[in-house]
Amino acid sequence: MLFEHIDFLDANFQVQKDQFIGVRDGTIAYIGKEKPAGDWKETYCGRHRLLMPGFVNAHSHAPMLLLRGYAENLPLDRWLNEKVFPFEDRLTGPSVRAATTLACAEMLRFGTVSFSDMYFFCQDMAAAVLQSGMKCNLSRGLTVFTDQGYEELSAYHDNVDLLAHYNGAGEGRLKIDLCIHGEYTTTPKVVQAVACHAKEAGTRVHVHLSETQKEHEECKARRGMTPAAYFASLGLFDQPTLAAHCVWAEESDLELFLRKGVTVVCNPVSNMKLASGFAPVPRMLERGVRLALGTDGCASNNNLNIMQDLYLFGLLYKGVSGDPTVVTPADALRAATVNGFLAQGRDDCGVIEVGKRADLIALDTDVPWMYPATDIPCNLVYAAQGADVRLTMVDGKVLYKDGEYTTIDVARAQAETQRYTDQIRSQLCV
Amino acid sequence: MLFEHIDFLDANFQVQKDQFIGVRDGTIAYIGKEKPAGDWKETYCGRHRLLMPGFVNAHSHAPMLLLRGYAENLPLDRWLNEKVFPFEDRLTGPSVRAATTLACAEMLRFGTVSFSDMYFFCQDMAAAVLQSGMKCNLSRGLTVFTDQGYEELSAYHDNVDLLAHYNGAGEGRLKIDLCIHGEYTTTPKVVQAVACHAKEAGTRVHVHLSETQKEHEECKARRGMTPAAYFASLGLFDQPTLAAHCVWAEESDLELFLRKGVTVVCNPVSNMKLASGFAPVPRMLERGVRLALGTDGCASNNNLNIMQDLYLFGLLYKGVSGDPTVVTPADALRAATVNGFLAQGRDDCGVIEVGKRADLIALDTDVPWMYPATDIPCNLVYAAQGADVRLTMVDGKVLYKDGEYTTIDVARAQAETQRYTDQIRSQLCV
Repeated sequence: MLFEHIDFLDANFQVQKDQFIGVRDGTIAYIGKEKPAGDWKETYCGRHRLLMPGFVNAHSHAPMLLLRGYAENLPLDRWLNEKVFPFEDRLTGPSVRAATTLACAEMLRFGTVSFSDMYFFCQDMAAAVLQSGMKCNLSRGLTVFTDQGYEELSAYHDNVDLLAHYNGAGEGRLKIDLCIHGEYTTTPKVVQAVACHAKEAGTRVHVHLSETQKEHEECKARRGMTPAAYFASLGLFDQPTLAAHCVWAEESDLELFLRKGVTVVCNPVSNMKLASGFAPVPRMLERGVRLALGTDGCASNNNLNIMQDLYLFGLLYKGVSGDPTVVTPADALRAATVNGFLAQGRDDCGVIEVGKRADLIALDTDVPWMYPATDIPCNLVYAAQGADVRLTMVDGKVLYKDGEYTTIDVARAQAETQRYTDQIRSQLCV
Repeated sequence: MLFEHIDFLDANFQVQKDQFIGVRDGTIAYIGKEKPAGDWKETYCGRHRLLMPGFVNAHSHAPMLLLRGYAENLPLDRWLNEKVFPFEDRLTGPSVRAATTLACAEMLRFGTVSFSDMYFFCQDMAAAVLQSGMKCNLSRGLTVFTDQGYEELSAYHDNVDLLAHYNGAGEGRLKIDLCIHGEYTTTPKVVQAVACHAKEAGTRVHVHLSETQKEHEECKARRGMTPAAYFASLGLFDQPTLAAHCVWAEESDLELFLRKGVTVVCNPVSNMKLASGFAPVPRMLERGVRLALGTDGCASNNNLNIMQDLYLFGLLYKGVSGDPTVVTPADALRAATVNGFLAQGRDDCGVIEVGKRADLIALDTDVPWMYPATDIPCNLVYAAQGADVRLTMVDGKVLYKDGEYTTIDVARAQAETQRYTDQIRSQLCV
């Protein structure tokens, strides 16, 4: 594919105008003002389009799409115990596969090219992701409340199977991460075992961390230290780690994140919807903690449009800190793109440079809300809409273009998702 | 126009399925399960569409679209004095008209059918609004720092002209409100004079109120009372009033709003971007204060997509209050629709009932993010996108449909807006 006469967002989040960008074998092979020679198979007219790296949704539970609009306006404990857990108990492989497929469609529509997910029925999720053409770091949810050994858990056997059969599948599009659900839902023994397993397998770790004040404070009471310090003491952060939320992270935790290279995944929408608090984003930016962005699941968001989180990331912490100068458009764009890829162990993605993977999106700039075109990064964060995405490409393959999906039967996924939700709700008598 | 087999949102924000809705002479003339007899001229296939009242943007400065992306990441005083004021000094009638036209296009695209605006060059704005087919309550910005008489001000002469020639124009689509910019930008004498003028003319009043803590506290120091109490003491609230922001409103102010029937216009996005604080929305809802929604101007938002404010209104105050049960989807939808119309003195709008004006929008529900269709009001607030709007109708006339505008030359408005912005920026040497 050759993008002709297109503006693009460079590694410094500056716009380079009227360029030719050639993609070959899934990789960006040419960038320049001159039209390159050679056969690029297909051309894309870049007039009124802005090419930028696709987004990474670095913390999601894609199959929770089935719960969209199901558990609303409830306090967290009732939300979990009365709604989410009973619903999740009734999930099956096929329902998870259908929901993951529809989640991929929603993410692709709004420019997400890769996501880091934590859930169950991961073999079914893997099948949906591989079919979709997206990239994904998949981790099998792990909770354990008794002092069982890690190898007795079905999660362990799933992890062994996933690592053997799915890690690196789809020419590297799929990666398997290991999961610890959270400090309060696991034991020290299993945390240590997962840390060892991750080290042996050379994978990353995906955890929930200090999402609520209750979780954070109870850990301090129980363990005599913060959840971050607790995980670090058990060796969990010795592998590259994605720590979701970190709303209540303390200064010493930030120090730890920096030292261990932990990526903090901010979920501003989910944290607001569940009233969990506001992450100390300005301070984390100041300290240089690597921040990525996530939607979290549809039961607490309720969409998978990462551009809403991009927007909120750029907006919210100004309001919360009382300082309108914190969080720049570049901070937000970095969190939504390259930082997510780095957290996924995808160093060859997230920047438009020759040699990088072609995970690209093209946005329509010929719309009223992108005028005047004074400050494009600012327009991207505060004015652009997810629906402005006109093309989503992963590894050089077009997965979405102008309303059409090339790998997903959306009508079928919608119908199936509705059917599975209705079935489960009828079982629950709601 | 006859909408056939369409789902619609009723006055209680419940979905009525598979209905026929007939529009004649700008009014909703029929609602029922059966196809009505008669000639409806045109039909609209309602399959996979949801019909709902159009949105009201109850506080905007439409021509500030020219400043989108121009004054970013600055503290409020530098934002105003170094950026906004010098730019505004260079505005002209034609530049305001072009920007208002493009603002109308953006608002229509995202389902706004009516807006309450406060700015300058109102005759030029009026021309743009009348051409667009939208509804608008227009108020001429009024600031006065010396003890001048109201009748010596150009704003007064503009108000007289606007009331004589534009109030009720476009078959009532245009209304003229009177403006007091704010407590700190006017004198008691002019506040009283405007209150009298509004009473004589039978118009509404549009003010900024307690937007920042500084403004609120300085008023208390200067006048011995809050801005709301001050305005009330001068008779300003004796006419129906739109009070924008009210971020720092106190309990006694809420009492006053209730007693005087003041509508508070929340601008959640703008208040975050400028770090002005968070309005006491849960408390205002609890007390029964009428709340409407506004985008504010593009220099502090930076878009005119009211669905982003609807979304934030439904999300933000959960996070700020720490209580996930506050602000329901119905609260948010009411603020974005009928409450805005009531504040504009348009009692015949904002609800889909026979006899009401046909200010309607149709959203596409055949999109991944509207599945499962479990709780439609919730999906509308938290998952639907502004770009899901497929049709925007005002007084029964289609102004936007499936990417096409019927009254606005968008390409021309975009080009003109860019040209005027570039001109002003080159004068300012930025």
